Amino acid sequence: MDYVREKLSEESISLILELIENKNYIKAREELLKFNEVDIAEILEDAMEAAGVDKTIVLFRTLPKDISVEVFSYLDLEEQLTIINAITDKELHYIFEELPFDDMIDVLEELPANIVDKILEKSTKEERKLINTFLNYPENSAGSLMTPDYISLQKDMTVKDALSHIKKEGMSSETVYTCYVKDKGRKLIGIISLRSLVISDDDVLLEDIMETDFVHVNVLDDQEEVSNQFRKYGFIAIPVVDNENRLVGIITVDDILDIIDEEITEDFQKMVGVAASTEEYLDTGVLGHVKNRLPWLFYLMVSSMITGLIINQFEILLSQAIVLVSYLPLLMGTGGNSGGQSATLIIRGIAVGDIQPKNVWKILWKELRVGFFIGLALSLLNFTKIILLDGQNVIVALTICCSMLIIITVAKAVGGMLPMAAKRLGIDPALMANPMIASMTDMFSVVTYFSLASIIMGL
Amino acid sequence: MDYVREKLSEESISLILELIENKNYIKAREELLKFNEVDIAEILEDAMEAAGVDKTIVLFRTLPKDISVEVFSYLDLEEQLTIINAITDKELHYIFEELPFDDMIDVLEELPANIVDKILEKSTKEERKLINTFLNYPENSAGSLMTPDYISLQKDMTVKDALSHIKKEGMSSETVYTCYVKDKGRKLIGIISLRSLVISDDDVLLEDIMETDFVHVNVLDDQEEVSNQFRKYGFIAIPVVDNENRLVGIITVDDILDIIDEEITEDFQKMVGVAASTEEYLDTGVLGHVKNRLPWLFYLMVSSMITGLIINQFEILLSQAIVLVSYLPLLMGTGGNSGGQSATLIIRGIAVGDIQPKNVWKILWKELRVGFFIGLALSLLNFTKIILLDGQNVIVALTICCSMLIIITVAKAVGGMLPMAAKRLGIDPALMANPMIASMTDMFSVVTYFSLASIIMGL
Repeated sequence: MDYVREKLSEESISLILELIENKNYIKAREELLKFNEVDIAEILEDAMEAAGVDKTIVLFRTLPKDISVEVFSYLDLEEQLTIINAITDKELHYIFEELPFDDMIDVLEELPANIVDKILEKSTKEERKLINTFLNYPENSAGSLMTPDYISLQKDMTVKDALSHIKKEGMSSETVYTCYVKDKGRKLIGIISLRSLVISDDDVLLEDIMETDFVHVNVLDDQEEVSNQFRKYGFIAIPVVDNENRLVGIITVDDILDIIDEEITEDFQKMVGVAASTEEYLDTGVLGHVKNRLPWLFYLMVSSMITGLIINQFEILLSQAIVLVSYLPLLMGTGGNSGGQSATLIIRGIAVGDIQPKNVWKILWKELRVGFFIGLALSLLNFTKIILLDGQNVIVALTICCSMLIIITVAKAVGGMLPMAAKRLGIDPALMANPMIASMTDMFSVVTYFSLASIIMGL
Repeated sequence: MDYVREKLSEESISLILELIENKNYIKAREELLKFNEVDIAEILEDAMEAAGVDKTIVLFRTLPKDISVEVFSYLDLEEQLTIINAITDKELHYIFEELPFDDMIDVLEELPANIVDKILEKSTKEERKLINTFLNYPENSAGSLMTPDYISLQKDMTVKDALSHIKKEGMSSETVYTCYVKDKGRKLIGIISLRSLVISDDDVLLEDIMETDFVHVNVLDDQEEVSNQFRKYGFIAIPVVDNENRLVGIITVDDILDIIDEEITEDFQKMVGVAASTEEYLDTGVLGHVKNRLPWLFYLMVSSMITGLIINQFEILLSQAIVLVSYLPLLMGTGGNSGGQSATLIIRGIAVGDIQPKNVWKILWKELRVGFFIGLALSLLNFTKIILLDGQNVIVALTICCSMLIIITVAKAVGGMLPMAAKRLGIDPALMANPMIASMTDMFSVVTYFSLASIIMGL
C-alpha cells in the first residue's frame, strides 16, 4: 500500500464535480474524504459554482461533523454565509461551538447582526461577554487576530503536572507547543515549549525551565508589527498582553502566513495606485474595481495635465524644432522607469527592515552615483544612435543626451528619497512607487529637456 | 519583579556599543545576554561597524557556547566569514558541530572551498557524504532548504515508546512537533503530531493515531511551491521525499518565512525591471546596482525609441497642430497607469493562487468594462476641462477624449491579459508589470491619438 497522498489534481476535482452533478453523494463523499480539509473547502467552492449551491450543501451535510467544521473554517465568507443560511439551527450551533475561537470571531465579524444574535442565543453570558470583547478590538490589531484558547500553567507545577494538564486541555487549545505561565494577577511571567516539557524529567518545576526573556506584543499593536516579530524570531506562537501586561491571548504562525499575504497584497495595490482591498480580484465587481482604481488615476491625470501646461510654455520652441517632440517619450519613459526602480528597492528594503531612517544619506549618495553611471551609459549610446541612425546634428544629440544624464540622475535620487521621506512623515512608503515617481519625473523631464534645448540650441 | 522582556531599543544598543568601545566586555556581555539571540546578532552586526571587528569578536568569544552558536546562525554571511577567520579551529569546529544542519549547509554553501575543507576535516566519512549530498541540491529547491534532523518513529511503537524516543532525540531535532513514521524501506507512511502523542494514552500504537493523508513535497520542488504549500495548509513542518517516496528531510515554517520574504522581494524587483537579487540594498555596491538595473532600462529605452519613431511619422500633423503635443503626457501617462494597475492586480492574484489560467476570459471581460467606465469618467472630465479651462475647440477636445477612452480600455485589457499570457507561456508574470505595460501602451497611445487626430481634425 502506498501511503503518500495524491495531490489535488484537476482530474480529481472534475470527477468529484461530476459525481455531485449526478447526485451520487455517497461516492462523491468518499472521493472528497481522500483530501485534506483545505482541499475539500476548495473543491466545495468550485462545486457551488459548477453543480449549484443546493447539491453542494447536501454533500457538505453528509461530511463527518469534525471534518465539516474544519472545512467550514476554510471556506470564503460568501460560501460560509450560503451554508449558514441553508443548514438547521442545530447544525449551525454545532459548527460555531466547535470552530476555533479566532476563526469564529473572524466569521462573526463579517455576519449581519441578526445572524450573529441567532448564533449566540445559546451561549452563556460569559461566552457572550468574551466574544463581544474580541469583536471590539480594532481591525488589523493583534487583539483581532488572537485566540484565548491557549495552555495556561503555574510556575510551581512539575513537568508531570503540566503534561497531564495538557493532556486534558490539549484538544481545545489552538496550540500546545508553547505554553504560558501566569502569576496570580494573570500577568505573563514565562513561556515554556512542549519540547522542553517532553525532554525534561517528570519532577522538575516549571519555574526552573521556563523562559523569562520572551517576546510579546500588545493587544493594540498593528498586525504588521506582529508579523514582523514572527519573521524576525521565527516563532510558532506569540503571546498578546494588555496594557497591564496581563496575558489575554496568543497568535499562531499559521494565521500570520495569511496576514503576510494580506500585507504584501496591500503593498502591491498601493504601489500601483489601487485602493487597498482584501477582496479577491474575481470577487470584486466592475464598479468595485472602478472605485478602487479611479481616484489615483484621477490624481495622476491632474499631474500629467501640469506636465502638459509646462509643454505649452515651450510652444514657440517646439514649433521651431518639432524634432524634439519625438524624443519626449524616450526621456520621460527612461526617467520614470529609473526612478521607479530606485523607489521600489527602497520601499521593499524599508518593509523588510533592511533599510533604516538613519541610512538616508548613504542611499542618496548611492543613488546619485548609480544614476550618474546609468545616465552616462545610456546617454553615450543615445548620442551615437541619434547621430548615426537618426541623422540628427550634434546640437540636437547633445541636448537630448545632457537632458538624459540629468534626468536619470535626479530621478534615481528622487526615487530613493521619496519613500524615505514618506517613512519619516508617517506616510506609507509604498505610495511612493512607480506611478507617483513617474508623474513627478515627467514634469522635471519636460522642464529640463526644453530648457536645455532653449539654451543649447539658442532658440 | 517584572518578567516581561524589554524590546530592543536604540538606547540599549547605544549603551552596549559604548561598553564595547570602552572594552568593558563584562558589563557589555551582561547587557547583551538580556536579549534574544536574534537581537544579539543584530547588536553584534552594529558593533562590528561601530566599535570595530576586533573588539566585537572578543565579546562574541565571551558568550556562553550554546548562545554563541545560535547567535552565529543569525548573523549575515559577511559577519559569519569575519568570525570564521578570527576564531581558533577548536571554536570553529564547536560552532559547526552544534549548528542546526540546515543552517550549517546554508553557511557552507557560501564559503570558499578551502574553509569548507578546514571545517569538515574532523567530520566522519558518513557526515561528509551527507553534507555533500545536501550541498549538491539545486539552489532554491526543497532539498536545499530541508534538514535531516527530524524525529523518526515506527508504526508498531506505542505512544510511551515514542515519547521516550523524543525525550532522547529531542534536543538535536529541528522540530519535535511533527514526527515521521517510516516503513523498513525508509518510505514515509504517516505523520504524527506531538500534540496527539501527548493527549493519547501510553499504550496506544502509533499506527492507530498517525495521519496517513499528509501533504509532502519532492526534494527537487522549487521553494516557491514549498512556500505555497505552507501558506495553503498552515503547517509547522512539511516532509520532503525523493522520487522513490523515501523521506529525506523536513522543512520547518520558520525557514519558510524567510523564503516568502525572498520570493516577494524577487517579485518586486522583477516588477520594476531590476534583476532579481537576494543581496540587501545597502550591501550591494554601486556597480552591482548599475548591473542589476541597466539591462531593463536599456530594453525599455529601445521601446521608447520606437514610440519616438512613430511620432516622427506624424511630424506634418504635429507642425500644423502643435497643441496636440501638450496632451501627449496626459494620454501616455493615463494609459500606462491604467494598464499597470490591472497588470499588478492580476500578477498578485496569480501569485497567491486566487486567479487560475481558466479565468482568462472572465478577466478580459471585466477589464474591458472597468476600462470603459474609467475611460468614460476621465474623458468626460477632460472634455469639460479642455473646453472650459484650456479654451480649445470642440474638435480638439473630442480627439483627445475619444483617444483617452480607447487607450484606457485597451490598456486595461492588455494589462490584464499579458500576465495571463506570460503564465501560460511559462514566463514569470511579474515581468509584465508597470514598466513593460507602460512601454507597450505608449506606442499604442501615440498611434491611436495621432491617427484619430488626422481623421477627426482632417489634417
